[in-house]
Amino acid sequence: MSTLASLGGDLSRLRHLNSLAVIRALRGAEPLTLTAVAEQTGLSRPSTKDVVDQLVALGWVVEVPPSAGGLGRPARRYRFRADGGHVAGVDIGVHTVRAAVADLDGNVLAETRQTVSRDTPVDDRLAATFRAVAGCLAAAGLGQDDLWSVSAGTTGVVDREGRVQISAGIRDWAGVDLTARLGELFSCTVHVENDARLAALAERERGAAQGVNDAVFLHAGRRTGAALIIGGAVHRGFGGAAGEVGLLPVTHWATAADYLHDCPVVPADVPKGDAARHTFDAAREGHPVAVAAVERYADDLALGTSAMVMTLDPELVVLGGGFSRAADVLLPLLRTRLEEVCLRMPELRGSALGEECVALGAVGRAVAHLDQEFFGTGPGSIAPPR
Amino acid sequence: MSTLASLGGDLSRLRHLNSLAVIRALRGAEPLTLTAVAEQTGLSRPSTKDVVDQLVALGWVVEVPPSAGGLGRPARRYRFRADGGHVAGVDIGVHTVRAAVADLDGNVLAETRQTVSRDTPVDDRLAATFRAVAGCLAAAGLGQDDLWSVSAGTTGVVDREGRVQISAGIRDWAGVDLTARLGELFSCTVHVENDARLAALAERERGAAQGVNDAVFLHAGRRTGAALIIGGAVHRGFGGAAGEVGLLPVTHWATAADYLHDCPVVPADVPKGDAARHTFDAAREGHPVAVAAVERYADDLALGTSAMVMTLDPELVVLGGGFSRAADVLLPLLRTRLEEVCLRMPELRGSALGEECVALGAVGRAVAHLDQEFFGTGPGSIAPPR
Repeated sequence: MSTLASLGGDLSRLRHLNSLAVIRALRGAEPLTLTAVAEQTGLSRPSTKDVVDQLVALGWVVEVPPSAGGLGRPARRYRFRADGGHVAGVDIGVHTVRAAVADLDGNVLAETRQTVSRDTPVDDRLAATFRAVAGCLAAAGLGQDDLWSVSAGTTGVVDREGRVQISAGIRDWAGVDLTARLGELFSCTVHVENDARLAALAERERGAAQGVNDAVFLHAGRRTGAALIIGGAVHRGFGGAAGEVGLLPVTHWATAADYLHDCPVVPADVPKGDAARHTFDAAREGHPVAVAAVERYADDLALGTSAMVMTLDPELVVLGGGFSRAADVLLPLLRTRLEEVCLRMPELRGSALGEECVALGAVGRAVAHLDQEFFGTGPGSIAPPR
Repeated sequence: MSTLASLGGDLSRLRHLNSLAVIRALRGAEPLTLTAVAEQTGLSRPSTKDVVDQLVALGWVVEVPPSAGGLGRPARRYRFRADGGHVAGVDIGVHTVRAAVADLDGNVLAETRQTVSRDTPVDDRLAATFRAVAGCLAAAGLGQDDLWSVSAGTTGVVDREGRVQISAGIRDWAGVDLTARLGELFSCTVHVENDARLAALAERERGAAQGVNDAVFLHAGRRTGAALIIGGAVHRGFGGAAGEVGLLPVTHWATAADYLHDCPVVPADVPKGDAARHTFDAAREGHPVAVAAVERYADDLALGTSAMVMTLDPELVVLGGGFSRAADVLLPLLRTRLEEVCLRMPELRGSALGEECVALGAVGRAVAHLDQEFFGTGPGSIAPPR
């Protein structure tokens, strides 16, 4: 049987595009009949059958047993082989390392988390990352060989090659060539990205920003950061420094969360990771000191947000990060402040994904890298699954 | 002879794409031989001849006389019929209305300008716009029937339908349905856009931002404004309000130019349109009061610029608008201030286009609208020139 790569010229290119169209129709959907695939792709029925047969031969598509019931011979149905390979997404944070392992459709099979600290040595933080992934693989009954791609998110400015340029949160993190260091631990390809950007990607793929082309994602938590979705894709910027408006002194984002952490309503023995929750709870109950603290936090959050909104005029602003659990308190305050200064108010929504969002975004990025590798680079790039 | 529209199915789509590739190769270039067209498009020589013959029959491409000299029979050469139609670009400003008429490649044939004022009634401003275009047509030896598309830029926030939403500069301008009003004056299609955005487009097409995918364009003049190029295209925002960061009170852009206009070095009898020039000249000569005024202006310009730079991380910032004539004074001051706060410094350049840039951008937008109309909407959309 001829492979796609062996077909030459314009016809091959057309057939390659048809294969991509069929795979797109089958990705993440229920099993489809040839008729349904033809409808979704706009291809003729004979062309559809031809392409599906080839993809079955290559191992990317499998026929599934016909559904029970009905009269006559049931139509054959096909699905993408999402379990043909797996990816890992990791979130290397200041206080926590999280990992998720998923299939090629991004369905998460297992998640783990480990506690680290701001001062955890670089080698130990990387070892914790490896253990987090290994734990996911074990939980999912998979081995290292089942892993095709690892994507990692971390705090700070990360360049295109995956080197940490600046990191305010993690000791000795700036200067680490994270792609290379993780590449020593994993035998598959590794990609690294800024964590807020991966969280924004997760919101776009499966969270509050689904179907939205232009959105601002706020990471509101112990750190305050942001990321942008422009034209349906995460915007990195020319040097990977987009979304860093909070580093401008005028925004006060570096210290914004201190109002919440240092509020007198927080009991003395509460660890810093839980402090803001106490302040939000007290503000909900109307405690004046807590209300004032939350309002000052909202002032700072709104100034940097308004700069992004007035620059980009996005459709949506998503409030994410740990403080999104207090979206009921924060969103109304943020809305009032933005309405005062913004020419056109975007919609505001709280994140639906919670603290897993960076790891989920990393899973999405890993799947996208595999798509690019297998399907993205022109005729002949559709290789069979390993 | 069959038209492209009559060919059905996938083959027609492929042939349509080939036609677009040939037209792109011929647009704006010197006349090309079939061999050169085949090289640039990647099509086979027989396919190229087939497509070029069809485009000649449709009137989009003409054969040009062979170049003189050389041995043997010279190869036939072809060019796009840029003179098959014309467009107008107009800049409806606070103090001036400018127009330019160009061919389908955007080559400007004639330009005019008229003086108006902030208080010119709406009807008179529109009449001045019509006269500006009529003057261009007369100068170029063309009539209204030669005009296929008119694109207009104006100050303020303009929605997708071409209604002025907000205009700080022109009296009674907010609420004007500019597309409809201009449509009553011109018999061809009319499009309306924010002026800074058209200036940014001109910089991208033929100015300081050629080949740059992500750039911030500063309109520095009697008004202070901005526009964004993202992914190689002008970014409008969800509601057409992108680039309006200068409306945030914290930026002081609304009053920034006052430092230059109200500087004591400006003679009392100088009209406001010339005032800033005196301040820049005095600053160049080291006059302390003028230097201080320019520095305070640069402070304000830099704050809003830094917010856009830290949001987008662009490759380039273009200093445009009337004050770009003082780029020698302003760019070093802007650079110093941005370097203090920006994570990654973009390149800074002064505009190369001067005060014609909005009209030039409008020409580019009009050409793009025609391209979309004739070539952009799938099989069968290649209609013969009128």
